[in-house]
Amino acid sequence: MIPKPIKKFIDAFSQLPALGPRQATRLAFYLTSIPKATLHELEISLRELKDLGRCERCFFLKEANLKVCRICGDPKRDREIVAIIEKETDLLSLEKLGAYTGHYFILGKLAEKGVLETAQKLRLEYLKSRIKSEGGIIKELIIALNPSAIGDFTAIMIKREFRELAGKITRLSRGLPTGGEIEFADESTLESSFEHRE
Amino acid sequence: MIPKPIKKFIDAFSQLPALGPRQATRLAFYLTSIPKATLHELEISLRELKDLGRCERCFFLKEANLKVCRICGDPKRDREIVAIIEKETDLLSLEKLGAYTGHYFILGKLAEKGVLETAQKLRLEYLKSRIKSEGGIIKELIIALNPSAIGDFTAIMIKREFRELAGKITRLSRGLPTGGEIEFADESTLESSFEHRE
Repeated sequence: MIPKPIKKFIDAFSQLPALGPRQATRLAFYLTSIPKATLHELEISLRELKDLGRCERCFFLKEANLKVCRICGDPKRDREIVAIIEKETDLLSLEKLGAYTGHYFILGKLAEKGVLETAQKLRLEYLKSRIKSEGGIIKELIIALNPSAIGDFTAIMIKREFRELAGKITRLSRGLPTGGEIEFADESTLESSFEHRE
Repeated sequence: MIPKPIKKFIDAFSQLPALGPRQATRLAFYLTSIPKATLHELEISLRELKDLGRCERCFFLKEANLKVCRICGDPKRDREIVAIIEKETDLLSLEKLGAYTGHYFILGKLAEKGVLETAQKLRLEYLKSRIKSEGGIIKELIIALNPSAIGDFTAIMIKREFRELAGKITRLSRGLPTGGEIEFADESTLESSFEHRE
């Protein structure tokens, strides 16, 4: 009874986070009511996501025609300061402050269980060997993981493993509410937490 | 600093209902983390929405290769019973009951102000002339508009205009929602529930 394209759309889009079956259904019908040109733009913008690659230095996203991401490729940024973050949206939150001029390193979202995934271990190994091959020591390693139990646990591990590879190793200070997430912190909390990193 | 395709995606998708800028941002990064084949499926399902047309009888959606929608084209359904509804998702809710075997007629979402839009007036005129040309009278016209002030207002108008075109004109009954409590019912619901006690 529902036209097949609608059904197909709902099935596909209700798999996405932030869109349950109900929202996907409403979205499907909404999209049939907008101009075809607007719908086409959405389609194009979805298609172009496929052209993105990963920055080989920090694992942030980059345009296919660039070798590294815009941050790693920016000569004005200090590559001797590296912030280890969990995910891309944390990078956006920190960038919005406008106060940070170092590089990032995306570790990937930490699992609940407290153990790093193999891919995450490999990323840290890669960071270690990169620091070693690029002078042996950086000025500062900022551990900007979520202020959660597993964040703490991972931070301790990183501090131990990078002890000799960074002049100082800091964490965002505990102005952040324990159990919260960086992505949802209000700007002023995040700012003071960044400022008092320790 | 954000790769252009991500920015473009966020701009386009944050215009959609159910997706604010924050959700669109998270969705963008999420989509870069899933297999390209899955992303491609989403793209296809979005593209295929463009192939949908409007049923010329009831204004529900239909596949391009069909003349009318699956409901209007179903010989088992009674075209002498027509339910006037606001939107496609209302049709889905009623269909889910499995109890209704008539046709639908989509009026379009009622504006807050209480005046029908020109397109909605034209749809009602079209329904009138269709009934006239197909025998002059149908068995039942069900006004399945939302039980709101503007729904009531429009229902009165429709009742007047279709008086001679339907054997009976009904509305979905008003009352306490099943599982609800009298104590928490709003005054107007309780009032109409009392008035129409049965």
